[in-house]
Amino acid sequence: MQIAYAKYLLTPHTIEQDMAIAYDKEIIAIAPLEKLRAQFPSAEIHDYGNAALLPTFANPHVHLEFSANRATLSYGDFLVWLYSVIEHREDLLPRCEKECLEEAIKQILHSGTSAIGEISSYGEEMELCAASPLRVHFFNEIIGSNPAAADVMYASFIERYARSKKLESPTFKAGIAIHSPYSVHYILAKKALEIAKRDNALVSVHYAESRAEREWLDHATGPFKKFFKELLGQSTPANEPMRFLELFQDLRTLFVHMINTTDKERELLKNFDATIIHCPVSNRLLGNGVLDIDALHNPYTLATDGLSSNYSLNMYEEMRAALFMHPYKNAVTFAKDLIVKSTDFSHEILGFPGGKIAPGLPANFQIVDIPDDLRAREEIYLHIILHTQLPRKVIIDGTEL
Amino acid sequence: MQIAYAKYLLTPHTIEQDMAIAYDKEIIAIAPLEKLRAQFPSAEIHDYGNAALLPTFANPHVHLEFSANRATLSYGDFLVWLYSVIEHREDLLPRCEKECLEEAIKQILHSGTSAIGEISSYGEEMELCAASPLRVHFFNEIIGSNPAAADVMYASFIERYARSKKLESPTFKAGIAIHSPYSVHYILAKKALEIAKRDNALVSVHYAESRAEREWLDHATGPFKKFFKELLGQSTPANEPMRFLELFQDLRTLFVHMINTTDKERELLKNFDATIIHCPVSNRLLGNGVLDIDALHNPYTLATDGLSSNYSLNMYEEMRAALFMHPYKNAVTFAKDLIVKSTDFSHEILGFPGGKIAPGLPANFQIVDIPDDLRAREEIYLHIILHTQLPRKVIIDGTEL
Ligand SMILES: [Fe+2]
Ligand SMILES: [Fe+2]
Repeated sequence: MQIAYAKYLLTPHTIEQDMAIAYDKEIIAIAPLEKLRAQFPSAEIHDYGNAALLPTFANPHVHLEFSANRATLSYGDFLVWLYSVIEHREDLLPRCEKECLEEAIKQILHSGTSAIGEISSYGEEMELCAASPLRVHFFNEIIGSNPAAADVMYASFIERYARSKKLESPTFKAGIAIHSPYSVHYILAKKALEIAKRDNALVSVHYAESRAEREWLDHATGPFKKFFKELLGQSTPANEPMRFLELFQDLRTLFVHMINTTDKERELLKNFDATIIHCPVSNRLLGNGVLDIDALHNPYTLATDGLSSNYSLNMYEEMRAALFMHPYKNAVTFAKDLIVKSTDFSHEILGFPGGKIAPGLPANFQIVDIPDDLRAREEIYLHIILHTQLPRKVIIDGTEL
Repeated sequence: MQIAYAKYLLTPHTIEQDMAIAYDKEIIAIAPLEKLRAQFPSAEIHDYGNAALLPTFANPHVHLEFSANRATLSYGDFLVWLYSVIEHREDLLPRCEKECLEEAIKQILHSGTSAIGEISSYGEEMELCAASPLRVHFFNEIIGSNPAAADVMYASFIERYARSKKLESPTFKAGIAIHSPYSVHYILAKKALEIAKRDNALVSVHYAESRAEREWLDHATGPFKKFFKELLGQSTPANEPMRFLELFQDLRTLFVHMINTTDKERELLKNFDATIIHCPVSNRLLGNGVLDIDALHNPYTLATDGLSSNYSLNMYEEMRAALFMHPYKNAVTFAKDLIVKSTDFSHEILGFPGGKIAPGLPANFQIVDIPDDLRAREEIYLHIILHTQLPRKVIIDGTEL
């Protein structure tokens, strides 16, 4: 048994002062330090002093396979980026084998994140994910807009999905990712989603990321026209947007990006079991603009996307960026929202217990330094986002990293 | 004599590859490493390898006196913040004496900034600024909306300004700051600006920072009404905006914030020698919104404001925030703009040589790590902003910090 004390404890919904937690692999009790000391006299005590103890984060959308990228891919515009992905993919992907993947996972853990939604194109990182202390919802991605290649693409997807199903455990879940409406043929998407329905699997899909996607899907025009013609010999979009979205009707789905949606699309999703995944840094770097979070009818949460379109997988960086990309939200209340979403809510949508400090949950928490001069206690969430580069300590399943 | 080599040299307007610089206190020559080695055979050589050598930054708007603040002041709303400044000022200011000021200056230097515009309310930091390796344009601030206190306020200003004039040197210049149109009586501003005109002094003024300021100056309404009534017994604004702005007609002025300006105001400034100082982090944290940089007729540059409304004085943090607060600017070209402004242009407006890598200029430069996998050379500016927490080395007047 161990006891951890910090001046502030964020559940994260409330701020408790002068409370400690007793834990082994799970959180056993929350009470004042002296009470826990009396109750568990042989427990090891960690007094973190002027700090906050808060749950670890979940990051529901990453692409670990692209973790070798720092400056290989081009930023500034979605199509420029997409062409650079195609140009450099063969060079980039082999640069992220075991060591690079392990380094990415280590950085995720040390930045206070203990659960991820991993979008996997090839499945090479599957075993590593299943064996790591991270909770991983492993989304096997299907892609392929060309009907001629559909069978090969489907077979690859089925093989990976089956392999990941076998690895399922309390810390590893198999999910299904549909790459996007422009890159997955309707029939292929439908077949993959039938599997999701059968297995009650969680689904992830990129949707309405760029203006180019909108133009292509709505009018078969814009920069995607040249892209599809030259690279895939295709002249019509793989999907009609509303018909594509209707495929997700009876599923639990994470809709990623959703920047350029129509009123009709947002209305349709109202009654779906849908969560919007907001990746502000990625959106900004690829020139996709800013998600209008106030226009959504569904709840949203935050993710980093992969290192293919971000400089960091650290949720503190992402939360700071979110603060700057939504400058009209009150800094104090929005900061609390971001932390509550990134802990409790993101654990909930990925289906892993955690993201809260409560008895019976895994002892997954982090300790961050708090400025000595904090006056208005409710501003603690904002100061955590502003001042934290890395947490002082991260504890996963009761063990310090 | 010393020679510094890095794979990339940013002048900052151009990116030179495989060039080195020879320097003592000044930059002597720029040429390929082998050529400089032959020319200066006894020079000490620093090979920084896969890095970029670029000029140090100038940060034209800080308030060092408030450097003790981390979480004493309240964020989220300008008036809430202003009331917290008044509530905690007496506690906050004495917490920033010699040691705290020295720490702030050290952090500025180590983050690659070698010149500042310091807005000084009390002048206690004057000697420290004059003695530091920083180039300091020292803006003695005048404040006072109440005519009854005008003489005392003016006398304090004159005393500080005279003291700073005596300290002038190639690295320390005396300037004049008018706090704002709502806080400085017209006559007081006019008298201070007559001194500026006489001495050809550079002027700084906060303008159009909050929506509350706009409401108060335009209509004598809004949250400032209660503020002025209760704290100062004042029921009318200290200035009519256009009349106030006309005071700056024949001066060189840094207009700080300028978020809520009218078309007429921006038109008026067209023919003034005016630069707009943009403090995105401060604006965001105090709920003031975002400056529309495309609506300006005058050039702008970036500054951090003080630790009273920022979590950092590091220009890399500020540039990253600027990138996120202007998400519709192309990331690649905007990043270059930000670096060019923060080096060359900000040195120019503060009146200090530097901000460029060129023979005859002070040997003020920094070395930052560059990702190994940079493919598109013109994206180097963006990657510097995204990946730099602190420069690897900072060299001021030819000496490594
Ligand atoms: Fe993605
Ligand atoms: Fe200021």
